[in-house]
Amino acid sequence: MRTLIENITLDVKNTISGFVENVRDKKTMCFLVVRDVSSKIQITIDKVQHPEFQDIIDRLTIDSVVQVSGVVRKSDFVKLNGIEMFPDDIQILSIAATSPIIAPNEKETNIDLRLDYRWIDLRSDKNLLMFKVQSEFIRACRDFLYRNNFIEIHTPKIIGTESESGAGVFKVDYFGRTAYLAQSPQFYKQMAMAAGFERIFESGPVFRAEKSHSHKHSTEFSGFDIEFSYIESYRDVMEMEEKMLTFAMCSVADKYSSQIKNLYNTDIVVPSRPFPCIDLHELYDELERRYEYHVNESEKGDLTTEGEKLCARFSLEKYGHEFLFVTGFSKDKRAFYHMRDSNGIPCGYDLIWNGCEITTGAQREHRYDILKKQAEEKGLVDDVKFYLDFFKYGCPPHGGFGIGIDRMTMLLFNTNIKEGMFIFRGPERLNP
Amino acid sequence: MRTLIENITLDVKNTISGFVENVRDKKTMCFLVVRDVSSKIQITIDKVQHPEFQDIIDRLTIDSVVQVSGVVRKSDFVKLNGIEMFPDDIQILSIAATSPIIAPNEKETNIDLRLDYRWIDLRSDKNLLMFKVQSEFIRACRDFLYRNNFIEIHTPKIIGTESESGAGVFKVDYFGRTAYLAQSPQFYKQMAMAAGFERIFESGPVFRAEKSHSHKHSTEFSGFDIEFSYIESYRDVMEMEEKMLTFAMCSVADKYSSQIKNLYNTDIVVPSRPFPCIDLHELYDELERRYEYHVNESEKGDLTTEGEKLCARFSLEKYGHEFLFVTGFSKDKRAFYHMRDSNGIPCGYDLIWNGCEITTGAQREHRYDILKKQAEEKGLVDDVKFYLDFFKYGCPPHGGFGIGIDRMTMLLFNTNIKEGMFIFRGPERLNP
Repeated sequence: MRTLIENITLDVKNTISGFVENVRDKKTMCFLVVRDVSSKIQITIDKVQHPEFQDIIDRLTIDSVVQVSGVVRKSDFVKLNGIEMFPDDIQILSIAATSPIIAPNEKETNIDLRLDYRWIDLRSDKNLLMFKVQSEFIRACRDFLYRNNFIEIHTPKIIGTESESGAGVFKVDYFGRTAYLAQSPQFYKQMAMAAGFERIFESGPVFRAEKSHSHKHSTEFSGFDIEFSYIESYRDVMEMEEKMLTFAMCSVADKYSSQIKNLYNTDIVVPSRPFPCIDLHELYDELERRYEYHVNESEKGDLTTEGEKLCARFSLEKYGHEFLFVTGFSKDKRAFYHMRDSNGIPCGYDLIWNGCEITTGAQREHRYDILKKQAEEKGLVDDVKFYLDFFKYGCPPHGGFGIGIDRMTMLLFNTNIKEGMFIFRGPERLNP
Repeated sequence: MRTLIENITLDVKNTISGFVENVRDKKTMCFLVVRDVSSKIQITIDKVQHPEFQDIIDRLTIDSVVQVSGVVRKSDFVKLNGIEMFPDDIQILSIAATSPIIAPNEKETNIDLRLDYRWIDLRSDKNLLMFKVQSEFIRACRDFLYRNNFIEIHTPKIIGTESESGAGVFKVDYFGRTAYLAQSPQFYKQMAMAAGFERIFESGPVFRAEKSHSHKHSTEFSGFDIEFSYIESYRDVMEMEEKMLTFAMCSVADKYSSQIKNLYNTDIVVPSRPFPCIDLHELYDELERRYEYHVNESEKGDLTTEGEKLCARFSLEKYGHEFLFVTGFSKDKRAFYHMRDSNGIPCGYDLIWNGCEITTGAQREHRYDILKKQAEEKGLVDDVKFYLDFFKYGCPPHGGFGIGIDRMTMLLFNTNIKEGMFIFRGPERLNP
């Protein structure tokens, strides 16, 4: 029976298995380091006592996979967790060829070469931790949502019409006709509101055919989308989002903050509630006054890339907070399905975390006639006819938001999107 | 503050909201039934006392959405939960046009018309329950996996080479080159094993470009895939799957068995463990002996469609069990990546539930040289070169399985795939 290294019992025989991280073969002794998903352990082989292991030692290469049984003892001489295993059995489960990228945990290799061999790259302590944390973050988000009566749905990714806008949609050959890959589950999560599901979420891939080479864009990524009914305003959406994020950050911090500190030298800050919130025009006034950042009046309906970055500094300085809600965007810059107030201002927000947008959220327009008019204004009414029909036969008021799982991961670890995704996809990157 | 109907407090004022399911407008009284995600309630309006509601009553249509406030009282005369609300305020949130499909909960409309208006179709009590149960089933599966140290990953759906086999793959125009939609996350979940993640799962869409019109096939559906390392045989995979399914069925039964009984007249049977298991050749002997079902020797390497169906009866009669593991398939009928025993028999299984295959599971071949040979035998070695590389640089022994979330839902409710999916996709069905 295999034991995880972190669960080993001292002074009795244990069987562990994992990758060989290091081999130091001396004259009379051989020291291996074996790594599993939980921890690492030194295997200490007395070659004089155990000549039968010499053949195995000779065949072992870095990253080969072994199963080792033996008594584990405390040792003051072993730096690695202060314990060592004295094997009485070693089995080689898999022999590794020499790594084409520099061994993990040592020097950095070029990112593109590392991505070519992503499965080797992912073996590093830092990467393994990153994806454990990603999994925990999403587990906690779901947990929060279940506690709040949300149900999970699964919406189609192959769709019959281009959604939202023509730009950036992948085309699929669907039995001789053209179909499209969903750019977001937006229309379908709203369909669930018209169906009376009231509170739903979905996690699934979203696809963007955009030739962007920024540090935060990918042609395919994992979305996490929430929609819920019977809200009174988009403030209810903001509140739900900040509660969910706080809950999830709290779970991550409880479980992983010391490991993240050790490996990344980063502190996970669990945000306090409520998150600060500022109107876009007021934000531009502040950025101008504080940092002499000038923006033309014509650009003030949207958050500029530079303005978004400056939010990191501004939010920390003014509110002592990493997160910042920004409201008051111009309707020209927002999707047609955002509800607008009596002044024509969209009832929605962006959420900025450490200078990077992580969410657009809003109350949706659920009134058929107004929604149709807003679609017409943007010249979309034919493209979205099927979607408009969702609102003809009764639909509760509702709103929602979405976050990108990979972008959240990237920001948690202060890295870029190529490192924050299990497998990155870009215009020139389709493998592995 | 809105209250869910199931949480209403008697003898005080509550505010509820939902769809209008029924309007009975009499001379001096008007009775509405309002439905939310949790329950239904009768709204009793004394028109003599409240003439101000007449205008609203006149405008109300079936499936319009309202918010109603009033005191709720017990009543011996009201069949619906024995309570009624006497409103002092009614707000119309959305007016519904006449439904193009027959009102839910009444007569059955043609399935294709219902699918055209799926969001209205989903409003029925039965459909709402179906998707609550689907969500709970997956919640419980994930919960089981987290408790067993699994982490969730998100693998790409746009891939550079046709996976597994050329048949049935959708092509995507990827910036002028051809890419493909993943038929399963198989290769990538195994990549996570080579990366040392040890235990992973993924839920996500899978795509099959197959012109099938059976009751259980869809061109896109939601997969739930598990893979884990350091197994000793495929029996470990079977054990993990039966534990997960038992755990999830138990959760579903706890929460929903009485509702399922009420609406579907179906009993949820929580399976006992271990599930029965039979070798394919022995199964054919049994089917012949018991039901005079004859199969040519040449077909006995795989489970025939008719044989699969007969498993329902056989498994109940012989084992008193709805589930049945079948092993001993021929290597010609199994994927090249299944490990084979010393007799060349694939180390894997199908799991049949009530006469329908829900899983193919197996130990995978993790030894590069043998895997490459097995790919060559099937003429696939060029197509899967990128995949073979995963096993060159060290990889633990591992295995796994996948289930279809929609097919599980279909079987739980003894229906077909069009009804068991949130939105069905078939060769002729791309909308909504």
